[in-house]
Order: sequence, then C-alpha cells, then structure tokens
Amino acid sequence: MTEMNNVASVIQESSRRELRDLVRTQLQMLLEQHDLRGAKAILVPVQPADIAEVIEGLPETMHALVFRLLSKDEAIEVYEYLDYSVQEKLLEEFRSQEVLDIVDKMSPDDRARLFDELPAKVVNRLLEQLSPAQKEATAQLLGYESGTAGRIMTPQVILLKENFTVAQALERIRRQANASEMIYYLYVTDDARRLSGIVSLRQLVTAQTEQKISEIISRDPIYVYTDTDQEEVARVIQKYDFLAVPVVDREQRLVGIVTVDDVIDIIQEETTEDIYALGGGVQSSGDNYFQTDLFTVARKRVVWLLVLLITNTVTGTIIKSQEDILQKVVTLAAFIPLLTGTGGNVGAQSSTVVIRGMNTDEIRSLATIQVVGREALAGAILGATLGTIATVWAFLLQGNLQVAIAVGTSLIAISILASVSGSALPFLFRFMKLDPALMSAPFITTAVDVVGVLIYFGLARFILKL
Amino acid sequence: MTEMNNVASVIQESSRRELRDLVRTQLQMLLEQHDLRGAKAILVPVQPADIAEVIEGLPETMHALVFRLLSKDEAIEVYEYLDYSVQEKLLEEFRSQEVLDIVDKMSPDDRARLFDELPAKVVNRLLEQLSPAQKEATAQLLGYESGTAGRIMTPQVILLKENFTVAQALERIRRQANASEMIYYLYVTDDARRLSGIVSLRQLVTAQTEQKISEIISRDPIYVYTDTDQEEVARVIQKYDFLAVPVVDREQRLVGIVTVDDVIDIIQEETTEDIYALGGGVQSSGDNYFQTDLFTVARKRVVWLLVLLITNTVTGTIIKSQEDILQKVVTLAAFIPLLTGTGGNVGAQSSTVVIRGMNTDEIRSLATIQVVGREALAGAILGATLGTIATVWAFLLQGNLQVAIAVGTSLIAISILASVSGSALPFLFRFMKLDPALMSAPFITTAVDVVGVLIYFGLARFILKL
Repeated sequence: MTEMNNVASVIQESSRRELRDLVRTQLQMLLEQHDLRGAKAILVPVQPADIAEVIEGLPETMHALVFRLLSKDEAIEVYEYLDYSVQEKLLEEFRSQEVLDIVDKMSPDDRARLFDELPAKVVNRLLEQLSPAQKEATAQLLGYESGTAGRIMTPQVILLKENFTVAQALERIRRQANASEMIYYLYVTDDARRLSGIVSLRQLVTAQTEQKISEIISRDPIYVYTDTDQEEVARVIQKYDFLAVPVVDREQRLVGIVTVDDVIDIIQEETTEDIYALGGGVQSSGDNYFQTDLFTVARKRVVWLLVLLITNTVTGTIIKSQEDILQKVVTLAAFIPLLTGTGGNVGAQSSTVVIRGMNTDEIRSLATIQVVGREALAGAILGATLGTIATVWAFLLQGNLQVAIAVGTSLIAISILASVSGSALPFLFRFMKLDPALMSAPFITTAVDVVGVLIYFGLARFILKL
Repeated sequence: MTEMNNVASVIQESSRRELRDLVRTQLQMLLEQHDLRGAKAILVPVQPADIAEVIEGLPETMHALVFRLLSKDEAIEVYEYLDYSVQEKLLEEFRSQEVLDIVDKMSPDDRARLFDELPAKVVNRLLEQLSPAQKEATAQLLGYESGTAGRIMTPQVILLKENFTVAQALERIRRQANASEMIYYLYVTDDARRLSGIVSLRQLVTAQTEQKISEIISRDPIYVYTDTDQEEVARVIQKYDFLAVPVVDREQRLVGIVTVDDVIDIIQEETTEDIYALGGGVQSSGDNYFQTDLFTVARKRVVWLLVLLITNTVTGTIIKSQEDILQKVVTLAAFIPLLTGTGGNVGAQSSTVVIRGMNTDEIRSLATIQVVGREALAGAILGATLGTIATVWAFLLQGNLQVAIAVGTSLIAISILASVSGSALPFLFRFMKLDPALMSAPFITTAVDVVGVLIYFGLARFILKL
C-alpha cells in the first residue's frame, strides 16, 4: 500500500462516515422534536446497510422508533444488517405482532443465525407463531450443527427440470424470483430432488427460447454436503469463483445453497478467530469486541497469560537452580531475555506460516515431513545468521569471549528447536482434532523457553568449564 | 468448530485431493508413454481450477505439454487459475504465437496482474503484440497504481441507456455476454458515460419486456473511485452484499467494475499480510510461501529478529547495570522472563484487537481516546488479577515476600503500560501513514521490555530498600 492510496482511502472513508454522522445527528434532533415526518424523509435516500449503522449509533430508546418509520420491506432488510445484540434488544421492544411480521419475513438463514443468539424460550415461542412454511424451513436449518453448510445455507432455490424449455424456465424464474435470494444459478433436479446439474441465468438469457434445459445444462456440478464445515464451503466458493454452491444431503438431494456474501462474512469471522489466537491468545466470541464489557474482555485474555505464568515459573526455577554459575558469571543472566525472546519469535514465525498455509490450503500436497524439514532448514539459516551476529555483538558488549560463544551457539540450537516445534506442533494438533491456531503458541513457548534455557546453561557450563 | 465437523471436512478434502492425485499420476504415466490421446481423454471431465492444480503438481517439463492438450477456451481459463510463478515459466516455454493467443484472450484484470509479475521487457513486447482493443484496456489498467480499484477492475461491462426498453436491454446482453465477466449487474450511463444508475438482471427478467429502463433503474448507486484502496473496495462489497461494485473516475465516468471473486482473493491476501506481520514479523511476498526458496524465507524473517537483538541488548545492558542488586538477591533475575513475557503478551493482545478492529471497520465511530482508555482499563483488570496471583505464587516458590511484592506490583504497572502502548501505537502509525500491523510489534516489545525492566528494578530497590 502506498502513501497515496492510504490518503485517498482515508478521505473516502471519512466522507462516508461524516455523511452517516450527519444523518444520525439530524435524525436524533428531529426525533427529539417529535417530527416523525421529517425523520422519515431524511431516511428515504439512505441505503439499508447505512440505516442499520445509523440506528446502531443512536440512543437505544430511539431504535424501535426509527424502525417504525421504515416501510415493511425496508425494515426487514435493515433488520438483517443489524448486529445480533441490537436485533435482540429490538425484539424485546416490539409488540408481538411486529416481531412476528419481521421474523416471518426474514430469509431463513438470517433467521436461523438470529435464533442462535436468542434464549431458547424466545426461540420456541417465535417458532410456534411462524407461518408453517417458514417454521419448517427454520426448524430444518436449526437441526444442522452450527458451523456446517446446513446451518448457513438458504433453502430458497429455484428448481428446473431437464425437459423444461428456456422460455418455461424464464417464466418460472419470473414467478419465483421474489422468494429467492439467488436467481443467477438455477438448479436442475430429478423427480427425487437429486441434483443433476446447474444452469446459470447467463446461459438462459443467451440461449434460444425454444431450447431444452437438457441442452444447456452443466452436469457434474460441484456441491457440498449439509455437514461440510463452513470453512471448507468458503474454500470451494473461493477456488471456483462461484456466486453460490449447492448443498446436498447424504442421498444427493438438493436442500439449499450457500451464497458468496455469507462466505465473505465467514472468512472474516474465521480470520478474526485465527488472528486473535495468534496475537497473544485472545479468545474470540463472534460478538463485536468493541461492544463487549471489560470483565468479559479480561476473562477472554487471562487464560493464556496464566499459561505464561506457569511456563515462566518453570523457566524461573531452572534459572534459580543455576544460581552457582550465575553468581560467578552474572553476565550470563543478561542474555536470557535475548535467547528466550528470539526462540519464541522464531517459533511464532514458523507456526504462523504453517497455520496460515493450512487454512488457505496452500500446504496442500506437501507432506508434514517436507514442511517441518523446510522450516528446520530455515531455522538453521536464521540461527546461523543470528548466532554469528550475536556472538560478535555479545563479545563487543561484555568482552567475555566464552560467554559470547555460549550465547551464539545456543542461539543456533534454539532457532532450530523453535522452528521444528513451531512447524510440527500445528500438524500434531490438527491430527488430534484440536485447533492449531489456539493450541500451538503455549506449547511452543513452553518448549522453547524451558529447553532453550537448559541448552544455554548446558553450553555455558561446557564452554566456561564451570 | 466441533470434532464431528472437522472429521467430515477432513474426509471430504482428502477424497478430493486423492482424486486429483490419481488424475495427476495417471496423466504423468500416459505422458511418459507418449499416449497424448489418453492424456487428453482423462482431462475432459476435470474442472479448470482442478486442472490448474494438477499441472502445478507435475514435473515442470510436462507443463507446456499438458497445456497443449486443452482446447483454446479451456486453456485460457486454466491459465488464469495458475500461480503467477507457473504462468511466468509457461510463457517462456511457449512459441510466441501461442503466448499471444493466450495473453490476448485473458480477461484484462487477470492480464494486468500477470504483467505485474513479469519483467518490464517481456511486458512491453507482449503489449506491442496485443490486439488494439486489448492493448488499450491493459495499458489503462497498468496506468493505475497497484493496490487500487483501477488496477483490479475489469473494464468489460454492459452499458444500458435510460430510454432502452427491457427487451432492448436483454438483446444487448445476449450480444455482449460473451465478452463480459459479469452480466448480472448492468450499468446505465448518460451520453458522457457518467454513471446514472444500476439495473440488475434479476430486475430485467422479472420486468415486462416493454417497460423502460428508466422505470426500473436504481439511482444513486454506490461506487468507488479508480484510486480507492483495494481494501476499501472489499469493505464496500462486503458491507452491501454486492456481486460487483462500479468504478468511476474523478469525472464520475464509469471505467469498470470490481467483482466479488476478486475481492475474496484480496481479503485473503491482505489477511495473510496482517497475520504474518502479527505472527512474529514475517514479511509477506504475495507468492505462495511454500514455493519460495529458503534464503528468501530467512531474509523475510530476519529483520524483526535483528530488531529483537537490539531491544534485548538494551534490556540486557539495563540488567547488567543492576549487577549489584542482582548479586545480593539472585532470586530477582528469575522473574525477569515472566515480567517481560507477560508484558509483551498483554501488549500483543491489545494491538491485535485494535489492528483487527481497524481493518474490519469495527472501531468505526469510536475515538482513539475511547479505545485506548478501554484497553488501559482492561490492562488494569488483567494486571490486578495476574499481579495478585503472581505475588502469592512468587512467595510460595521463593519464600521472599518483598521480592514477591515487587513482582506483583511490577506486573500491574507493566500490564497497564503494555495495553496502553499496544492500543495507542497502531493509531499513531496509522496517523503517520505507516502500516500498523507491521510497525506496532517491534515498538511495543521495546517499550514494554525496556521500561518494564526499569520499573521492576526501581520497585525492587524501593521495596527491598537496596
């Protein structure tokens, strides 16, 4: 990113934000003066996604009021853009008929995600009151495990038969378009609802109206199963540049589709989880962090810090057990932070690259042993470079050649140790079905700190003949 | 992610991978036996994205051979899915007419990205030989700065006029569909090519054929400028759930669109950059890391390790300057790793959350002072918790109450210091137009290590009255 781009982007962002802030300020003023007509007028040209952000910036007492200014269709769209916490609070303020009007008209996938956040009692009451078709669609989605394709799919798809003509297909699309989130891919099924192929709206509008669907169908479509992990669904859509991917059950029956816009949100959520885990073991909650209370925040960070406390106790005990040598050559203590710091960092570099490679599927065909071997070599190169520099550096600083050599050689050993454990542990955790991003850092730090300090004192005793 | 999902996902991934490996093995065998007809037959049912992966797994000498087995249209599609490094090597092997056939038929955005990776000499030669229309399109894209909407957009869009009927619009789509990447959004422009609105193919197929475009147009469309940063483009598409966003120049003339599939790749690239920077200062190159040579890998990691060396020298010098107190109470040295380790980690947690919040736009309307204040409080809560535990812990381990109190109080001070610098520095770097993800960690570690150790010895001297 160049400086120029940054400036341009900042300007655009801030002008959009300013506009939004302006709408919010004016809206709040109008509402305080009970000028509902003015308030309604000011919202007319604003996009639903932006209205959602304006609402989130207003005092809570005004949320329901603004909502009632919107037309029914717009209200539902705006509602779907709101944060879960705001959605939930709004439901409490609405009269039950209003609640029902909105919840019944939401798309089933958005509704299922809202229900995930609501108390079970509320969900059951709402489910009871839904129209039969919506009730069935939602109950079905809620039946799939969270984090799977079944849970995030939308069941509304337009189905075609192979013997339809293009004209018949277009007529069906015209009739069903309003009830469907995605009309750019049409799905061709047999009598048992088994998926036999896909036709795109692009193919339909460029074909002759009297052609049969069977002539333009793309067979052997790529699909996912209802229990496919959502990250894998995201990978499929990304790899093939799809706008949506069909979801089938174990009998190959089409049950829904996952669309690209949901996939972007999933990628973002999963990445935040990984980034938090790598960035000092912060647990992600899926909520907007900046709206979470501080004690929850502290609780989500303290676990990894307590692990550090224990690791450091072990390291500290080892250091204390070397009191004899430390009292003779106090200089040795001065290099402990350098050694554990460098080791921890080399380990973090290896595990970061390997975990990211797993998640983006870049590691693909490489065997574990190839990756670990590669990282061990990289660690050796880094260790040799740093070890040489550190030896010279330590000698210049402290004037004790033996200590300098002990530091340099330890650094080589520690770099190799760190890169091997940094690259191997993620594979071990994946094999054990644990999340590599969350589990790797504590174990790498412990291994590198404890073993690293032992190596250092061992080498120092040997070189200094103590 | 539950265990069940993981298992399902692993099974599916591995079965797809096995299939691909099988195709690759068979293909290699057939090519070694010079059975080109058999080799061609085996590739017929395989998707272009998968053929690209099969090629990448074959020995380099076979790449061009496999390529020549494909039909012209398929070859271009497969080529666009290949890694840049493979694309580049293939170009060297082709006869110049073959090269031209492929490069001329690539979509302009993919071609511009390939040209980015090629030597300037090759690019100029290729540009010369392109057909006039393609030459102009590519030269235009290459004129925009890398990382902006102008550089990643595709100029091929279908334009409509307000006075068209729906039937006329559909006819134009039918004729131009082949040359356009995206036909689901149509753009309405005036005589000066200024963007006046958008019509979706959904609207067109559900409208009456004799209706005018002006009756169904969505006015005031959301757009980006040619110099809008690509991350901002990604945010716009994500926020509004778009399939594409129009790109206009400073005179509001439509010059192209950015599509959602390119945006997913951008999100992934930018996230890898951030994750690498946070995970121990690995520099990202945009290439597939697992295909980069090891010396390049080591070079991309060594910078941050050298910064650590210098930081630790300063810390080491401070520790050495405290030799008098360390020799009297050797126990003090045992807690240095705990203090710097915890401080570094608390700082990393704060900066991770803030940097991620900046990138996902979650921080939005919060002022810097609010965010830093929040983090300072979180740091105080964490510090108080850890300080209390560490005091008890240190006393139980070493039996020296004064040292234990010095450790506990230092931990509180260091936690607050770390969370304040961890949350404030990213804002400072953003303000200075530097990348917060890349710059924050070194400065936070330095501040926390150096100041932290000073705080510790200061408190120890005070409490132990040394």
